[in-house]
Amino acid sequence: MTNLDKIMKPRTIAVVGASTKDHTIGSDIMKRLQEYKFNGKIYPVNPKGGIIEGLQAYTTVNEIPDEVDLAIIVVNAKFVLATIDQCHEKGIKGLCVITAGFKETGKEGAELERQLLEKVKEYGMRCVGPNCLGVVNTNPEIRMDGCFAESLPERGHIGFVSQSGALGGGILNILKDLNLGFAQFISIGNQADVNAETALEYWENDDDVEQILLYMESIQNPANFRKLATRISKKKPVLALKAGRSAAGASAASSHTGSLAGADKAANALLKQSGVIREYSLKDLFSTAKVFANCPIPQGDRVAIITNSGGPGIMATDAVCEYGMQMAKISDETKEKLRSFLPSAASVKNPIDMIASAPIEHYKQTLETVIADENVDMIMVIYLPFLGLKDIDVAKAVMEIKAEHPEKPVIGVFMTKNEFFTKLSDMDVNMPFFMYSEEAADGFNRLNQQRLWMNRPEGKVPCYDVDRNKAEQIMKGALLDGRDQLTTLESIDLLSAYGIRACKYGLATNEEEVANLGNSIGYPVVMKMTSKTTSHKTDVGGVRVNIQSEEQLRAEYQDLIAKLTEKGLIDGLEGVIIQEMVKGNREMVCGIATDPQYGPMMMFGLGGVFIETMKDVTFRIAPLTDVDADEMIKSVKAYGLLKGARGTTPAQMEQIQETLLRLSQLVNDYKFIDELDINPLLISEKTGEGIAVDGRIKVRAEEAKKTLNVACSCGCC
Amino acid sequence: MTNLDKIMKPRTIAVVGASTKDHTIGSDIMKRLQEYKFNGKIYPVNPKGGIIEGLQAYTTVNEIPDEVDLAIIVVNAKFVLATIDQCHEKGIKGLCVITAGFKETGKEGAELERQLLEKVKEYGMRCVGPNCLGVVNTNPEIRMDGCFAESLPERGHIGFVSQSGALGGGILNILKDLNLGFAQFISIGNQADVNAETALEYWENDDDVEQILLYMESIQNPANFRKLATRISKKKPVLALKAGRSAAGASAASSHTGSLAGADKAANALLKQSGVIREYSLKDLFSTAKVFANCPIPQGDRVAIITNSGGPGIMATDAVCEYGMQMAKISDETKEKLRSFLPSAASVKNPIDMIASAPIEHYKQTLETVIADENVDMIMVIYLPFLGLKDIDVAKAVMEIKAEHPEKPVIGVFMTKNEFFTKLSDMDVNMPFFMYSEEAADGFNRLNQQRLWMNRPEGKVPCYDVDRNKAEQIMKGALLDGRDQLTTLESIDLLSAYGIRACKYGLATNEEEVANLGNSIGYPVVMKMTSKTTSHKTDVGGVRVNIQSEEQLRAEYQDLIAKLTEKGLIDGLEGVIIQEMVKGNREMVCGIATDPQYGPMMMFGLGGVFIETMKDVTFRIAPLTDVDADEMIKSVKAYGLLKGARGTTPAQMEQIQETLLRLSQLVNDYKFIDELDINPLLISEKTGEGIAVDGRIKVRAEEAKKTLNVACSCGCC
Repeated sequence: MTNLDKIMKPRTIAVVGASTKDHTIGSDIMKRLQEYKFNGKIYPVNPKGGIIEGLQAYTTVNEIPDEVDLAIIVVNAKFVLATIDQCHEKGIKGLCVITAGFKETGKEGAELERQLLEKVKEYGMRCVGPNCLGVVNTNPEIRMDGCFAESLPERGHIGFVSQSGALGGGILNILKDLNLGFAQFISIGNQADVNAETALEYWENDDDVEQILLYMESIQNPANFRKLATRISKKKPVLALKAGRSAAGASAASSHTGSLAGADKAANALLKQSGVIREYSLKDLFSTAKVFANCPIPQGDRVAIITNSGGPGIMATDAVCEYGMQMAKISDETKEKLRSFLPSAASVKNPIDMIASAPIEHYKQTLETVIADENVDMIMVIYLPFLGLKDIDVAKAVMEIKAEHPEKPVIGVFMTKNEFFTKLSDMDVNMPFFMYSEEAADGFNRLNQQRLWMNRPEGKVPCYDVDRNKAEQIMKGALLDGRDQLTTLESIDLLSAYGIRACKYGLATNEEEVANLGNSIGYPVVMKMTSKTTSHKTDVGGVRVNIQSEEQLRAEYQDLIAKLTEKGLIDGLEGVIIQEMVKGNREMVCGIATDPQYGPMMMFGLGGVFIETMKDVTFRIAPLTDVDADEMIKSVKAYGLLKGARGTTPAQMEQIQETLLRLSQLVNDYKFIDELDINPLLISEKTGEGIAVDGRIKVRAEEAKKTLNVACSCGCC
Repeated sequence: MTNLDKIMKPRTIAVVGASTKDHTIGSDIMKRLQEYKFNGKIYPVNPKGGIIEGLQAYTTVNEIPDEVDLAIIVVNAKFVLATIDQCHEKGIKGLCVITAGFKETGKEGAELERQLLEKVKEYGMRCVGPNCLGVVNTNPEIRMDGCFAESLPERGHIGFVSQSGALGGGILNILKDLNLGFAQFISIGNQADVNAETALEYWENDDDVEQILLYMESIQNPANFRKLATRISKKKPVLALKAGRSAAGASAASSHTGSLAGADKAANALLKQSGVIREYSLKDLFSTAKVFANCPIPQGDRVAIITNSGGPGIMATDAVCEYGMQMAKISDETKEKLRSFLPSAASVKNPIDMIASAPIEHYKQTLETVIADENVDMIMVIYLPFLGLKDIDVAKAVMEIKAEHPEKPVIGVFMTKNEFFTKLSDMDVNMPFFMYSEEAADGFNRLNQQRLWMNRPEGKVPCYDVDRNKAEQIMKGALLDGRDQLTTLESIDLLSAYGIRACKYGLATNEEEVANLGNSIGYPVVMKMTSKTTSHKTDVGGVRVNIQSEEQLRAEYQDLIAKLTEKGLIDGLEGVIIQEMVKGNREMVCGIATDPQYGPMMMFGLGGVFIETMKDVTFRIAPLTDVDADEMIKSVKAYGLLKGARGTTPAQMEQIQETLLRLSQLVNDYKFIDELDINPLLISEKTGEGIAVDGRIKVRAEEAKKTLNVACSCGCC
């Protein structure tokens, strides 16, 4: 199903809507196919017949006296469906519908697109578009430029998918300037059939595509994208520019997790979990692509800097260190060698400053010496122009040495005139060159990130033994009661049923029960109201902590009842929960939010009153692997607190990890769980365990009822 | 003293060390001065005399039959002092010493430089260098290129100071490519005399210099720099690239403030307080300079985006929103006008998408309409190439409209070929153009930052009525006791003497005193050990909170004594402090650290156990103005907590501000205070006050003794 060979590697192409009229797409596409010297046969199709771009035109595809692999369709939208029928009759399996006027224009267009997709599926075709710029394959055996961008494509090994046609065209225009070529380009347009996921899968085992670039405004099937990207990014770098961050719009959710989440957080989590390198600007996307196109994946993160000027060396060091990479410790042997030919004023410590007088020979010798040092994984070579040395000669000399050492990434930083880069773009290069050291440091960071991802264990989604019966009973109870929001008590019970460590507790509905419960749990205890109507308990004074005695407990209870009565909130009150008081001052939070597009998403981070202010939380799409959970814990700043700062007990990391994984299992088992907060997940000072001392759970009632077979109490369904 | 006219606007220049030998600095400088057509007279000086570059050479400056304003000295280092003597005899007041071999080479060179400076001062001269690249002034009335960079200078209105000669040269080489010209350039080299501060002051009222760019590796006199930069940045933008961030090296300080501080935090604070725009890469420095060179300061932060393609419009919106700027709300009137000529598929909401078919006329009409909208402060015009439209024609059309509206910043984003930018660099432009929308958003952000700075009130350093006698008594007491570290008790007393709100407390040294004090303060209380040897009390269990009764207080005291005895820490114990227990769960921190270069620095942020982990703290150099203090409070994330999140009492912001200002006064009065932590500054849940419940103060003993006239107890001094 994901084989796009008919579209991307056709032997014969029909251009349906080919035209003799200049500056029309039907004319441009014909010209482009010929100009770029398509390796197969081109058949123009036009109801008027005649000669188009020197080729015999056919009035319909059926007349073409040959098998046709790909039909590029540029006819008016209203003729597209009929054209597809004709293609089917002809036995064509590959379509590229450039024509606009579908989903992007509104309701009618969307209906037309639905019909288009129906036909494509029915006929067993694959279709790129509609409303797209076309497709390109630069492989010398194919040479297909079926696209109406301004420039001819530049040969290289990038697979590039663009959701925006115009942007895709803009990008193709500037790739040559950037010394970046690509292997295949798919403008997915409205992505009725072929989308980024199809392309990913198609390119997985295509050696001509060495890295994949995605420009996306949306992700169509996040779960499928995750599965594919996770696998493929281990084989070749996958880079994504995902636009529309600010458009994400505030979620109306009432939970903490929900209010901190949002579509862009979800996209970010998904890309991170999938090993996709996310870039935030085209500039960065191209810089990174340039680095992957010209560098191997390094063995480590130790960077050496070779320079002919101190200042840029300092700036490069700043940039490398800010990414958390290491400045390589040059070995004594290497230093000695360097000293043997560099002047005494040179510095052989990293950054290696050959000083302004360095001739080309010093660039060669120094690089050769440093590249051989096994303490060095990546090398930045900085050149500033001084009278007498030609930038392009220095670059050539450096590339000569680099050619003998393909195993280590080398990046050139040439702070010279723009024309140097213009010259380079006409040359074969074996390493990337930038104007500024920060760009090179960015590049090393991306290489290192890809290295870490490729070494990262795959991880497993564990399956714990849990009490599903009890869990379902609790939720059914709430639903039968007409609630989509579980009470605190129900929430804590549900968490316990899933094996999540919650503190000892009991529910009491009058003062005597309160006192008995307090005495049986043992002081100090915490008293919390549980209500069907009030969800943010703290705001109404509904949480009382550190109650030391029965006497105090009774007093607090009386006071609470009085306050709630006064505020008119007494009616929803189910009672109060008396809990063991877990001592600890580290409050974490974990929870679940559901993104309409990406589905359930897990959150972990610093909890308590700090949640909204500090926003020290991280997200991952569920289900989590053990590695995901581990990374979540380590990626928040509060990890420092968990490790045990200033004499506090180190937290039980594995137990916290398990808490996250059990939550992930819970939401995977019951996908109708809409929101879930454990806040706080208190870190016990005594044992270091993470203990759920409060929980809030909300379900999507209709979905939950269906899944759990709960008859609606309304009597009408 | 800061008049550099003799150096920067000379009528006559002597080149001492002028040479006929090619590729020497003595030859290059001569050639450059002539090639760039210096407007005054050039006198080569060489002991051999003869003709150099077609001019009569003199054997010494004394022989020159004219007054000489500037001597550019390129002779060997060993002859420099004698040359300066000769210049003095000749009455020359301006020197530019290009010669290297001074401080940068070690001890002997440093001594030579000391002597050089001595002569310069004695003779009432000003001197640029030594070890520098030279000086340039592109003003048509001067036309001095006294510098040996590779390229001839490009005329413009930037004043540029570079501490790195090589880097300065590299920069000059690429400015033309970037379409950036400068008015004056000073390569300060070892900055024996003239430094960045001198240049700032010199350019303050020079209308030819419209913005100032600094490349710095160090700041020579931070207090003076702050004074000058604060004033001058209100008149024209001051941009700085400060290298050497990672070299900052961890401070060995034992205080929280000290351990979080460090030279780069200090530099950052200084630049921020002074209104200097700090850039972290040359790329960003130049981009910003390009924006200031071609844009007025806007009236607000509302950005409109005009585009011919949706994708880049989304990315531009993302970038604008991420800076916290506003997307302009286009007025209904404007929308109506736009609708009158744009096609129906266009979007007249911001971002305004004219769609791919937009002809040049639409660019003109749309910009003209939007620029007139009073809801719009800044405009980004995006162009993606489509067949039929020429980028340079679009740019010209846009600039035509822009020329009629000089009052609003307009930035072009042209995602087109590199040659477009090359063409631009040969044209007169009236607005900046970039390849990517993120660069334009960066630019708007900098313009907005400068606007906010120019509108920012200057602020005052207030002077509070404090009890200096008491403060000095406390410090003298500690010094006489042989300590540089004040006890908790002394620290809190000292803070109180400076009018900083600390909680009620008293010192007790035995159980009876403890009980009495507890009873008089009233429960709950906190008990804290105070010791001359143990400073991190929490780590040894020396802090007991929420003590509810005399009985409990006695028990805790007995337990503490037992624990300390067990650990062998009982000897340093002075007693225990019994404090009122201030209820509140918001713990802030404020403090002082001393940077060896920048002097006392204030810190404010989230305190308690979160300090090191969350690092939610901000720094400013003391003394603080009221505006500085206000900005400190508002710039940390924890400000959200102070405002009163989730039903907590809003903090008394003015009282917290006053706390910072009083601390600033304290460290300004006693500059020997080395470290000071108030952690926590607890926010009272009852009143919202910030209350110091703990304090640690350390002084530099020798300095303190001298200042406070404390006789040393050693008997030897």
